[in-house]
Amino acid sequence: MIGIEKQVLNPPETPLVILSEGCFGVQQSKTATGVIRYGQWPVTAVMDSQFSGKTVTDVIPDQPPIPIVSRLSEALALSPKPKALLIGTAPMGGGLPDSYYQVVKEALEAGLHIISGLHIFLNEIPELVDLAQAKGLRLWDVRQPPSDNVVTRQLPRPAGTRVITMVGSDCSVGKMYTALELNKTLTDRGEASQFVATGQTGIMITGHGVPLDRAIGDFMAGYVERAIDESIQQHQPKWVIVEGQGSLLHPAYSGVTMALIHGSAPDALILCHNPKLKGIRNFESVPIPPLSTLVNIYESAAGWIKPAKVLGISLNTSSFTEAQAKALVQEYEDETGLPVTDPVRFGMGVLADRVIQAF
Amino acid sequence: MIGIEKQVLNPPETPLVILSEGCFGVQQSKTATGVIRYGQWPVTAVMDSQFSGKTVTDVIPDQPPIPIVSRLSEALALSPKPKALLIGTAPMGGGLPDSYYQVVKEALEAGLHIISGLHIFLNEIPELVDLAQAKGLRLWDVRQPPSDNVVTRQLPRPAGTRVITMVGSDCSVGKMYTALELNKTLTDRGEASQFVATGQTGIMITGHGVPLDRAIGDFMAGYVERAIDESIQQHQPKWVIVEGQGSLLHPAYSGVTMALIHGSAPDALILCHNPKLKGIRNFESVPIPPLSTLVNIYESAAGWIKPAKVLGISLNTSSFTEAQAKALVQEYEDETGLPVTDPVRFGMGVLADRVIQAF
Repeated sequence: MIGIEKQVLNPPETPLVILSEGCFGVQQSKTATGVIRYGQWPVTAVMDSQFSGKTVTDVIPDQPPIPIVSRLSEALALSPKPKALLIGTAPMGGGLPDSYYQVVKEALEAGLHIISGLHIFLNEIPELVDLAQAKGLRLWDVRQPPSDNVVTRQLPRPAGTRVITMVGSDCSVGKMYTALELNKTLTDRGEASQFVATGQTGIMITGHGVPLDRAIGDFMAGYVERAIDESIQQHQPKWVIVEGQGSLLHPAYSGVTMALIHGSAPDALILCHNPKLKGIRNFESVPIPPLSTLVNIYESAAGWIKPAKVLGISLNTSSFTEAQAKALVQEYEDETGLPVTDPVRFGMGVLADRVIQAF
Repeated sequence: MIGIEKQVLNPPETPLVILSEGCFGVQQSKTATGVIRYGQWPVTAVMDSQFSGKTVTDVIPDQPPIPIVSRLSEALALSPKPKALLIGTAPMGGGLPDSYYQVVKEALEAGLHIISGLHIFLNEIPELVDLAQAKGLRLWDVRQPPSDNVVTRQLPRPAGTRVITMVGSDCSVGKMYTALELNKTLTDRGEASQFVATGQTGIMITGHGVPLDRAIGDFMAGYVERAIDESIQQHQPKWVIVEGQGSLLHPAYSGVTMALIHGSAPDALILCHNPKLKGIRNFESVPIPPLSTLVNIYESAAGWIKPAKVLGISLNTSSFTEAQAKALVQEYEDETGLPVTDPVRFGMGVLADRVIQAF
């Protein structure tokens, strides 16, 4: 979807109201949290009636005091005036609950664009489409894949540009978080770095990217390559940090992961892992091997097309105590000979150092 | 598409006229040739005016004397009366040339269903849709992927059922041909064997299967698993021979190949190769490694989820002399320790032997 929505929904110029009714601050609204923490959009308000009158700081202490309201009309009275409503939760079943539907209609009637990462596409609901068209508004279904046929060409990139792709032991082990934190740490150090999103939350955060898991098989690698190329053309970064998807060990999603690796044609990889996992979630017959083996698997698979080393390991140790986390970091460092961190607990400095030193 | 068209377009009950105007017998009409050679459909006539009055035997000597005609009306006068028109060529650009369009319209008006593997979907052309609906006829776009969301579950299969999946060094190295010949050889020996198609020509040949390269990334593995499960439920085969797609070494299509391997969860693999290839076509920077390395790559990648050995190697030696082909077979046997054949030159006996002995 890169480029298609940008003229209308340019993040820095589009203040948001984020719909997060009933679940702000918890896992189910991680899109809302991600957009607030990492997004380039001004956020005017969050909608969640359970916290009405409070601010985001009350729920997420290290974030700014964005007002939390219970009604859209309250958000519309705030400054900067919202230009779009972003659906910041993933309701069970992927559909559009009636309560959401009413808010979406109200937002359109008030002149707001809609940003949705739901499985169900707003652009397939005639009443919403009619309303948006009548008002000249955009319904941005973030999960809608590109419709053109793009096959990867593996063209050379500008000299000095380095692509770092996140890979993982499983889904949901911190690949997006690691990529965003690495991008932020590099940027904070004055490095020209860009994050490229390959999933819906990442796309909402940055305003562009490709929802790889919904793309047609033959074009997945081409779409990733194009997303990276467009980021390079637009920003001339030295570092391109590519959000990961799935895992090569995941029976259902390994195809997407493989396409991501070969399509992104990385110069290096970062391996993400949650040490509490012994096997792939929902496929317990598939064990997660020792991390040194996993490093070999990813380096081999990338290397079938183009050599790339794993530069370091990013852990999610939230299930462990601080002391256990430190011991795990030491254990994995000893096993793999690579720098290891948990970005939440120990920061990304050690991996940013390693990335910069590697090239 | 499994099951959806079957009630209407059951191959043994649906005599075909195959449209192959201007190119019967050459590469561009390999779908026509494949359907005649391997298909379960009675073929009443082939349409190609350059061979009008001749028979298929005149063009492909080992095939039956199916009449070749220049007009649809001639085909309709033959017995068994055709019930469907199959577009047996892939015109340049993937579109629907006007001359084809006229034949399709004429066929619909005469009461024939249409089977098409074109990139452009007949079901998106209003005039044809209206005509088909008015006549109660089916427009079968073979390349149309399933529209439901199916994630692989990796469920156990009936005891004694063995899935053999084709893999290759590159696209177009004989994976479909090898699968069809292996299935035929096993069947000829009285083994209960079924071929499962994963590409458009294979689907046309058998009447069902899944066009994997057009499927949504997250569901590719699930669709393959379902296609195999349905074949097992319907036929209770001992052997399921799965058509391959792409190559793990192919920058654009490796994601599809990975999903095919993990989704099919094979018990064993057959490796297909064309010895004239030194690198991946259109990606010459990607070398094809020694076949023993390629065997390791595929066994490793399958083994991340479930162990599977490469049982043998199938070559396309059509660019070589008979003596060279024999030397290549010997060379690869020495290198890999596996049985090697070119099914066209030397038959599939050696690989069928190996498959039967392996389990």
